[in-house]
Amino acid sequence: MHFIGIDLEGVLVPEIWQTLAKKINIKELELTTKDIPNYQNLMKNRIKVLKRENIKAKELFEIAKNINPYKGAEKFLSEIRKNHQVIILSDTFFNLSRPIFKKLNFPTVFCHHLEVDKDGMISGVNRCATDHKKKVIRFMNNLSSNTIAIGDSYNDLAMLKEANLGILFKSTKEIISKNPNFFNCETYKVLLDTINKNHKEWSNRYVK
Amino acid sequence: MHFIGIDLEGVLVPEIWQTLAKKINIKELELTTKDIPNYQNLMKNRIKVLKRENIKAKELFEIAKNINPYKGAEKFLSEIRKNHQVIILSDTFFNLSRPIFKKLNFPTVFCHHLEVDKDGMISGVNRCATDHKKKVIRFMNNLSSNTIAIGDSYNDLAMLKEANLGILFKSTKEIISKNPNFFNCETYKVLLDTINKNHKEWSNRYVK
Repeated sequence: MHFIGIDLEGVLVPEIWQTLAKKINIKELELTTKDIPNYQNLMKNRIKVLKRENIKAKELFEIAKNINPYKGAEKFLSEIRKNHQVIILSDTFFNLSRPIFKKLNFPTVFCHHLEVDKDGMISGVNRCATDHKKKVIRFMNNLSSNTIAIGDSYNDLAMLKEANLGILFKSTKEIISKNPNFFNCETYKVLLDTINKNHKEWSNRYVK
Repeated sequence: MHFIGIDLEGVLVPEIWQTLAKKINIKELELTTKDIPNYQNLMKNRIKVLKRENIKAKELFEIAKNINPYKGAEKFLSEIRKNHQVIILSDTFFNLSRPIFKKLNFPTVFCHHLEVDKDGMISGVNRCATDHKKKVIRFMNNLSSNTIAIGDSYNDLAMLKEANLGILFKSTKEIISKNPNFFNCETYKVLLDTINKNHKEWSNRYVK
């Protein structure tokens, strides 16, 4: 089997919380794991800010409906789904990002879920297992798969290391220079060519 | 997360080898695991028969192009993909069944791969891990998922047992009566209603 685990934000769509923060004009919501490294503390902070500002989940979900995938992302994703088993491995939330998944033609996605209380406020996070990105690639290796992992950021590095082929896409100079073993590229065209090349090599192995 | 593992043959499409056997009119190829319980022996037998009759892989692949999903299968699958993470868990072969997956709008599929030698003959099987159906459901349970497994036959029972909700679809009287703990149904409508009911119950749990 040929398997691709692919990150969402920064790779197929823009950073979602930063987009939300700009739309509702609250600077504190622009903070990411680069500012608050602990993901759970980051989410607690986001929930606190939303409560203070009395911003309901529905309001965020409405804004998220207008977030579009990067130009070419849907076409790229459709193309790789023809020959590979693809799962989006993301730290986003399914109930927040559902309209985006629709625009991507409902790929399989492993991510988290936002808890919403009876007042319509975001009250917590129903998490996927810790390190789910890496765990999925490891599991796929055990299912006799040829695995590719594609990501852009620090929280993708573990899955990239785990995969047969790790690819950095639209990453930072710092991450690229610190991780010379990963292939890195900036466009869907080069990304697709790289995947196709590996697919061809792997498929040739099936011929005895 | 809401996860559904779903079998292919007998659930979404007709039995593929039986369809091929009828088209090329070779009775021996109609044998299934009901006749030769050991899957590897069954495949060895199929490969032997194809070699004896000089039937190339390409010929089978051409016939498989004309196999269509059951009426309503694509619509049902599209519907559940909106709210659930769906993976088809099957003992079919990706290079044989690819045209069927296209007709199902490229869902994620974990299955096997037929090896084809330089003469174009099927020479072996590149298998997914043994018991991959059950292993995937177990893995999804560990990813904090609510899991549903849907199947029709003996080789689906292990994954149905592993899931939070096991559903027999278009199964035999014998399997149904021996497995009273599984929900069983015959139509996509009832199947969808059952899934939606559970989805609603599970989603309510997110509200604290």
